[in-house]
Amino acid sequence: MAAPVEPRLFKGTRDFLPEEMLLRERLVETLKSTFRTYGFAPLETPALEYLEILAGKYGAEGDRLIYRLAYKGGAVLALRYDLTVPLARVVAMYPQLGRPFKRYQVQPVWRADTPQPHQGRFREFSQCDVDTIGTDSRLADAEIIALTVESLAAIGFENFKVRINSRLILAGMVERAGLPPAQLPEICRAIDKLDKIGLQGVERELEKLGLEHQRRPILELIELSGAPQEQLAELRRRAGAVPQLLAGADELEQLFEYLDLLGTARDRLTLDLYLARGLDYYTGPIFEAVLPEHPHIGSLSGGGRYDGLIGVFSGAPVPAVGISLGLDRIVTALRQLGPEPTDRSVTRVLVTYFDADCLPDSARALAELRRAGIPAELYLQADKLKKQFAYADRRSIPYVLVLAPDELARGEVALKTLASGEQERLTLPEVIRRIRQAPPPTAGRAKS
Amino acid sequence: MAAPVEPRLFKGTRDFLPEEMLLRERLVETLKSTFRTYGFAPLETPALEYLEILAGKYGAEGDRLIYRLAYKGGAVLALRYDLTVPLARVVAMYPQLGRPFKRYQVQPVWRADTPQPHQGRFREFSQCDVDTIGTDSRLADAEIIALTVESLAAIGFENFKVRINSRLILAGMVERAGLPPAQLPEICRAIDKLDKIGLQGVERELEKLGLEHQRRPILELIELSGAPQEQLAELRRRAGAVPQLLAGADELEQLFEYLDLLGTARDRLTLDLYLARGLDYYTGPIFEAVLPEHPHIGSLSGGGRYDGLIGVFSGAPVPAVGISLGLDRIVTALRQLGPEPTDRSVTRVLVTYFDADCLPDSARALAELRRAGIPAELYLQADKLKKQFAYADRRSIPYVLVLAPDELARGEVALKTLASGEQERLTLPEVIRRIRQAPPPTAGRAKS
Repeated sequence: MAAPVEPRLFKGTRDFLPEEMLLRERLVETLKSTFRTYGFAPLETPALEYLEILAGKYGAEGDRLIYRLAYKGGAVLALRYDLTVPLARVVAMYPQLGRPFKRYQVQPVWRADTPQPHQGRFREFSQCDVDTIGTDSRLADAEIIALTVESLAAIGFENFKVRINSRLILAGMVERAGLPPAQLPEICRAIDKLDKIGLQGVERELEKLGLEHQRRPILELIELSGAPQEQLAELRRRAGAVPQLLAGADELEQLFEYLDLLGTARDRLTLDLYLARGLDYYTGPIFEAVLPEHPHIGSLSGGGRYDGLIGVFSGAPVPAVGISLGLDRIVTALRQLGPEPTDRSVTRVLVTYFDADCLPDSARALAELRRAGIPAELYLQADKLKKQFAYADRRSIPYVLVLAPDELARGEVALKTLASGEQERLTLPEVIRRIRQAPPPTAGRAKS
Repeated sequence: MAAPVEPRLFKGTRDFLPEEMLLRERLVETLKSTFRTYGFAPLETPALEYLEILAGKYGAEGDRLIYRLAYKGGAVLALRYDLTVPLARVVAMYPQLGRPFKRYQVQPVWRADTPQPHQGRFREFSQCDVDTIGTDSRLADAEIIALTVESLAAIGFENFKVRINSRLILAGMVERAGLPPAQLPEICRAIDKLDKIGLQGVERELEKLGLEHQRRPILELIELSGAPQEQLAELRRRAGAVPQLLAGADELEQLFEYLDLLGTARDRLTLDLYLARGLDYYTGPIFEAVLPEHPHIGSLSGGGRYDGLIGVFSGAPVPAVGISLGLDRIVTALRQLGPEPTDRSVTRVLVTYFDADCLPDSARALAELRRAGIPAELYLQADKLKKQFAYADRRSIPYVLVLAPDELARGEVALKTLASGEQERLTLPEVIRRIRQAPPPTAGRAKS
């Protein structure tokens, strides 16, 4: 055995201790259950991939951030960088999956980035992706947005919005201003700040790009606001003879119509013609979920249609649409907005161990509680009750079930509620009823 | 974008496609929920650890199997090799976790081993560990065994046994035969085969080790069988003046007494004095769960008390007891023993898309089904019903909800059950009732 080494974490990675994990597990379970209701099926892929599978898919900067393994003298192995390229590999390898292939995937990814924990940037973090592969049906796009709304509502968020735009509209906007497509990225970077810096700010940004004369046609489009139907009608009027703008309007009109059919509440959706996401990537509608009253939290999810990427292993394009939900962002938001962030203990009742004579009764009560589905823990050695109460308190266990000679002689037990200090003599069935009726630990509803 | 490369998996790793994942997710959820009922709380640690944290903890062979990362010119990073050393690191880093610390952890681990998929040996596989840290209470050992029984029963196994022995008895057995402790490992390898080769086989194995004269005292102990209490009484009679044997008998007597108190069925437990597990590791009781009628499947779980390992980062010993459940083994066993291995589809109902006129009704029905918690999928483009039925069939979706002009004109829908081919006209609430009442997809109860 080696000499003791200092126990420490690699920077940019995290331990999730029980309190954090209880919240994360409940979140993930809620999300998965919502995904299943929409007919998405689970997929998992290995963390280890051949480097050649991942390399060249994420641009030069992405390539640099792929973790490589020392293996057989060469760096031929790599750690999963996202869940999309592995999905593309799976789609190419298993034609039996058929089309459309609707899958969700919740797994960690790794990036050799400079960690910035306070900005939520880590080297190891979980992604939570939902995608529909192999159909260009606009209904698939609508379903992904409906699912986003449903998922965030199921978690407990109240005042969130899904912002929607289209890659076609962004491209058409640049064309309408008489600018070459090559300028799209820098223009997107400028207009994407509208939320933060306002129209005048964007105007200045465009000016800095040397677009004094071309900024008006851009501002005319991104300033459109109101109900999506009216915005799109106005967009058509201002579109002139730019086919991409008309195609984008068609695309989004159908998308909003389908969202109506699917019963997605309109006040959850907003058409933001300045929204720009991952330009290398998306080919149709794009969307992200935000908490408008808490812009500093950033987007809770991002996604869109990306018809170019999934076919990378077969050579032929495969249409695809999906979202990635940001688990870390969601946890941050719940902790900031929720009244009580999470359960602090998995255990609901601590059963005392007074002495060897009382132990059989304690063990029986313990088994009964567990059989009733109530997470229960036995104090593991005979000790003063005071110490056992202190243990429960330290552990945030809400109840202590006291089985001591006095109570047992009367065929009763005593239930102590730590929050109030109250102690009642009850029968065991009464205890089970009482604990079941108590409000369950809250998930931290996010009244943002 | 790079030229297309052949999509392939690194040998020894696996993709888990939806059918496999549905079973694995349900298994893991069942296990976690049982662990929580026993008051164990979730923990997750990063996949990436500093190499110095892992190195030197698994012996020379283990060290060789640690995956190292190329990082900043040196191999200072490694992939998690098991869940126990990270647990030891966590216990040393966060004293606020208190004692006892009861945690479960379900995460993948990586070993640079020669993969043997048919023997269930992979380079990336999931471990499922449950441990109680920081107490030497024999009740903690009993709870871990009770939890093992409960977990396997909850998954659906019927004819399994937890085999129990003690490291002290194995050591005492060697002492009683007048042999040095250094011979314990080879003797354990010989006697551990008793199940497969019988007493005479073990006799021959011991002979091969040159123990013609010392084998009798060993065989006298490992041949003991019957009720644990009687076996332990007989062990005491044969123990002579070997303190380790008496201490081992004390230890196991108390363990079985506590298991009785916790209500663990006696017929689930068997005392096998020839059981030997991880000698470098365990210090007290040892146990493993098996399907006696299916010895080729191997053990479903293994564990025991190991008071030496968790303190490795603090220098001071920290008592610990735990088990590792083998997720891959359990899946293999369920697939081999269960009548129907798993749900083949997450989706319960496919809702048809007949034409644009019917789509609003289809979308409404879809939303209703989902709201009722029934996983439902919409066919994503208008098409012939025959093709939609074929899609559902290919996907193993059990029901198709047909919304076509004839039915809709009558304010009805038609529910087609694919297994029988039967098609009934119903109202939507009737459909929801019907599907809810249908037997849920079986988990594949393992009537081993």
